[in-house]
Parts: sequence; C-alpha cells; structure tokens
Amino acid sequence: MAKGKKNKDKKSRKEIEIIAKDLAVRKMLRGSKKSKNAKDGIAQAKVSELVAAVADGKASKSVVKGAPAPGVFEVALRAGDGFVLADVDPASTPGFIGDKAAGEALMAPLAEQVADLQERLYAEAKGGGKRAVLLIIQGMDTSGKGGIMRHVVGAADPQGIRITAFKAPTAEEKARPFLWRIRNALPTPGVIGVFDRSQYEDVLIGKVHELAPRATIGRRYAQINSFEKSVAASGTKIVKVMLHISDEEQQARLAERLANPEKYWKFNPGDLGERALWGEYMDAYQVAIDKCSTEVAPWYVVPADKKWYARLAVMNLLLAALLDLDPQWPAADFDVAEMQAKLEAMGDVTPDDPTDESPEDADES
Amino acid sequence: MAKGKKNKDKKSRKEIEIIAKDLAVRKMLRGSKKSKNAKDGIAQAKVSELVAAVADGKASKSVVKGAPAPGVFEVALRAGDGFVLADVDPASTPGFIGDKAAGEALMAPLAEQVADLQERLYAEAKGGGKRAVLLIIQGMDTSGKGGIMRHVVGAADPQGIRITAFKAPTAEEKARPFLWRIRNALPTPGVIGVFDRSQYEDVLIGKVHELAPRATIGRRYAQINSFEKSVAASGTKIVKVMLHISDEEQQARLAERLANPEKYWKFNPGDLGERALWGEYMDAYQVAIDKCSTEVAPWYVVPADKKWYARLAVMNLLLAALLDLDPQWPAADFDVAEMQAKLEAMGDVTPDDPTDESPEDADES
Repeated sequence: MAKGKKNKDKKSRKEIEIIAKDLAVRKMLRGSKKSKNAKDGIAQAKVSELVAAVADGKASKSVVKGAPAPGVFEVALRAGDGFVLADVDPASTPGFIGDKAAGEALMAPLAEQVADLQERLYAEAKGGGKRAVLLIIQGMDTSGKGGIMRHVVGAADPQGIRITAFKAPTAEEKARPFLWRIRNALPTPGVIGVFDRSQYEDVLIGKVHELAPRATIGRRYAQINSFEKSVAASGTKIVKVMLHISDEEQQARLAERLANPEKYWKFNPGDLGERALWGEYMDAYQVAIDKCSTEVAPWYVVPADKKWYARLAVMNLLLAALLDLDPQWPAADFDVAEMQAKLEAMGDVTPDDPTDESPEDADES
Repeated sequence: MAKGKKNKDKKSRKEIEIIAKDLAVRKMLRGSKKSKNAKDGIAQAKVSELVAAVADGKASKSVVKGAPAPGVFEVALRAGDGFVLADVDPASTPGFIGDKAAGEALMAPLAEQVADLQERLYAEAKGGGKRAVLLIIQGMDTSGKGGIMRHVVGAADPQGIRITAFKAPTAEEKARPFLWRIRNALPTPGVIGVFDRSQYEDVLIGKVHELAPRATIGRRYAQINSFEKSVAASGTKIVKVMLHISDEEQQARLAERLANPEKYWKFNPGDLGERALWGEYMDAYQVAIDKCSTEVAPWYVVPADKKWYARLAVMNLLLAALLDLDPQWPAADFDVAEMQAKLEAMGDVTPDDPTDESPEDADES
C-alpha cells in the first residue's frame, strides 16, 4: 500500500468505505446484479443495518473462501419491524450475488464448517454444557422442507441431530396444551433439534381452518413468545425459517408431482384444498411473523422458488447460529498424563501367540 | 469372440469359469493381492459359497462402476458355521482388492444408491408398506462406531433414519426385561433404524461383568433369536455388524485421544478397565456370534483396523440389504388425471395486482 494513501485523513476514508459498502451491500441484499423486479423485498432500513453489521465485524467474517459471511444472510433475511411478507420476491436471492453453480459449490465447504462446530457443540455437552440449537422450518406444501432436511440437515452428523416432523396432532396431543408435544421434542444439550413444522401450525392451519376459538388462537402468540424465551434462556439458540415460495412455483411443483409416478407418494389430494386458501395462509404467516419475530427468536423469511438458494441460505443461518454459540472443547475431567502412563503400562492385552498358525492357509500365500 | 471358442464344449467352459472365479474370489475374499498374513480369516467354505453366489447372480450385480457387488461383502463377511473370530485379521479387507483411495472414491456413488433406495423404502411405507431396515453396530471402544454413524448412516436422508445409542440402562430400563428398550427403538415402516450398541450388550458387558446370573445370561441368546425372528417376520431386514479391531489398534487410538485436547471428550478412564478385559470380551463376542448368527439375522464381522474399509464394507452391507428388499414406489391412491385437471383449473391463486408497485424502490434499479 502506498504511503500517501495511508496518510489520508482516517475519518473521511472511513466514510468512503461506508458508502462503498453501502452500495455493495445493496447489491448483495438484493441478491442480483441487475434487479428487474422493483419488489425485491429490501427494506431501506436493512441496508444501514447490514452496513453497521459489516462495520462491527459481525457480518464480515467469511468462513468459506468466496462466500458471504453467514451473518450477511442473518441480516438480509431477518424479519424486523415493518416487515411485509408480500414485498418479498420468492425468486430473489438476498445476501448472495452468485448464480446456482456458485451457490451449490459453496454447500460442501459450508457443510464442513457446520459439521465441525456441531462436533464441538456435542463435545461441549458431554463436558457438562447445556447449549443446543433449534432450527424450525415452516413453509407451504412443496416449499422444500424435505430438501432442507436432506441437503442442509443431512450434512451434519446424524448422531447430533434430532428431527421431529409435526403432523396433525394425535388424540393424546389434542388433549394437551398445544405446546406439550413441542416441549417433548426440544433438543437435549449438544444436539441440533430440527422441527419440520412446529408450534406455528397452531397459528397457521389452526387459524385458517378455525381449529380453535379465535380468542384461544389470539393468546397463542404470546404463549409461543414466552415459551421460546424460556427455551432460549435455557441455552438453546433458536432459528426460525419460513421457506417462501410463490403460488406459481407451488403450482409447477404440484404439477411435477402429478406428472411423475415416482413422486405420486408426495402428493395428497388435500394439498389442493390448502392451495385454494393461499391468501389466508399468507395473512396468517404475516401475523405470526409480526407477533413472534423476537430478539431471542427472530423469524428469517427465505425466498424459496430457487431451491439451491433456499438451501444455501438455511445452511448459512444454521452456521451463523453455531458461530454465534462458539462451542468449546471441554477440558479433560481426568489426569491426562496418568491415563497415558496407564495405557502404555498395559501394553498389548493379547500378546501374539507364535504357535497360533493356520497351516491350512499356508499353501495359499 | 472367435467362433472356434464358442463351439467348445459348454460344460468344460463352465468348469473353467468356476475355477477362474474361484481363484479371483479367493483373492477378493482375502482383500489383498499379496497376503502376508496366514491368519486372513478366509474359511475354505467361503470360497465355494461365494463362487456359488457369483454363479447364481446374487453377488455379481455391481451397482457402482468398478465396485464389487454388495453381495460380495455379504458373503465375505457373514459369520457362518465354524466361524472363528480369532482367525479374522482386523487389518484385512475381505471382498475388496483396492486400496484406501479406491475404497474412498466408491463411497459417494454407493451413498447415492443407498439414498435412492432409502427414498423408495420411505415412499413404499407412505403407501402402506410395512418394511424397514435395522442396522446393528457393535464393537469395542474406538472400533469406529461413531465414524460409521457419520460416514455411512450420515449419507442417508436423516428424515428416514432413526439412530438409537444404547448406554448403560437407566433405573426404569433395568426394571424391565432387557429387550424392552430395544423393542421401543425398533424402526417404524419405511425407516432405517440404527442401533449404536444393542441387545447384545446384555450378553457382552453383561457377561464379562456378570451383571446378571449366569443362567439368566444363558437364556438371553435364545430370547434374542426369538425376538429377531419376530422382527424379521414383521418385515424388518436385520443387518448385524461387529466392527473388529485389534487390541494394538485400540491402544493406538486411545493414545491418540489422550494426545489431542480436541479428543479428550471421547476418552473415559473406564475405557482402560474394559481394555484390560479384552480376552473376555472376545470370548463373549465369539459366543454371541456362534449362538445368534441366524438365517434371518446373520452376523457380519467387519475388520476395522482400516477405517476406510470398515465404512466401505458397512455401506455395502446396508446397500445389499436395501437391494434385497427392493422397495417399490407406491401407486397413486387418487385419480391422477382428475387432480391434474383440478390443479390446472385453479390457476394462480394470487393473481398479480398491477397497481401494487413499490415506488421507493424505482430509483434503485
């Protein structure tokens, strides 16, 4: 670096940097170099939020070469004050300027990072740690929840994963408070718990189909917030994801299932009835996000028309959560030198027996 | 092919083929071109067994280019009549002539095959199928059970996997028959259940430490056989694997854990006490394999000093089990044409609103 540049006034350079970052960040948040669509879901507030995050280092630590810092996705996708679901373009790629090939190429190195941190988290818990991660995946039919399980969650060590798919409640579950079955599925220390659907079904399908009195449903948002607050306080990092597809994309994906006998099993005639209620579901999501995107358990709305992008984004959100926890290898709870000496002193526990030969094999060598 | 050859007596050509296969098979079973060790664990019976398997097609269907057919590993590793654990060289690679790089290169394509068949199995169950797989992994400390979970089981879709790690029984479990907790962990239809340790602990550590009266333990083998027979009859394919390491390799792996602070958490001072009982454990394994390697639930003894080989072998055993089940996509339980028409008739459920534009974004494009 030239000496002359170094001597420039630091304050004004800082300002220039911020402006440059601001421009880069706008592009990054929009996720496309040439945005044709005005409805790209980038609130102006986001830009300054990300500039600030970059400035304080939070969103500037890239863990994989050539990839945006995981914090970028957190900032770009978090549903904050004034969030409007209808303004999010399901085909956009906030936080990422690259194309499909570039996004897919990042998955393996990101997965490696996730696996490393997961092992640490698991080890930390073996040493008495209490921390865990809870990844909640919501989305309309065909939004790609299964693909997230396969390609993002599947990249982690299955020993440290607990997936729970919440279906329509059983008779026993119905007889209990709606959070009962959720509480039973929380991850134990060291584990990444994953919910395929969640407590939010009780304010989504529950609301759309009026499965409970309106007042009951109205109380659930505060109950969920209170529940999530206690889960977070117990040491579990909560990441809530809505996979957001367009209704056109859903139509295409349902048509694909109906066109391929190997995909019939994924189709349910009831899916069409739910599809007809699209607007009601979007309204219910908007309310759930408005009321339950909290400091300790924010909602992230992930555009999901591009499957590769949704997977990249959720991988980054999971990675960001693990980086934030920064789990630590536990110290030995034994005397290492003593154990080493003991192990060495033991030597072979089955010394070779020189008389033990298999003569019938001798002619084979 | 020259005409003259074709006209040769068929019977004698068949005989020549068998002899050629026999020679190739001996090499394959031994897993090494130049076997230095006479104790290579290849019972003579194995050779003719594999030749027969190759001849009837069972072990000749390679599903991945350049890889041995999964059936080869089944034949090479199955503990049959007269099996002697002490004769198995833990450093050998039965069924595979290639080296580490060749073995590792096969993992991804094999994993893809496993994942495909797993999806079919899962789909079949959604359509009412009752079949499942149960993979049981046993082995001494450091034998690589965790690595199998990560690298073999982890290659499958986590939605269709249920791993249960059996630790020392809890007070509640102790108060029940020993198979109670095992029964509770059986895979549901469509799922690949994986046991990290299993009912066999009750005839291994249970026997070595005399945790129950001798007569009680003596009865357990028949109870396990009867239990496994009923599990198999219900449609679950059982694959029982013993990861077989040498005591020298265990010593090296324990020393490695004690030399690396990132691995301290894997070490337990109690491991040394168990190590001192190596011979007793081997005897207990031999008895368990003698008494419980049955037609419906055979034991496979996988040499595990080479981690890459053990993973390759278990991947193949799992794949062979899935190929044997040959799961089928279920038929549609709805009228496909009717659903297609209905979907198309619905069209867009949220038609674009041309008045909905974000003017504040217009100057950004």
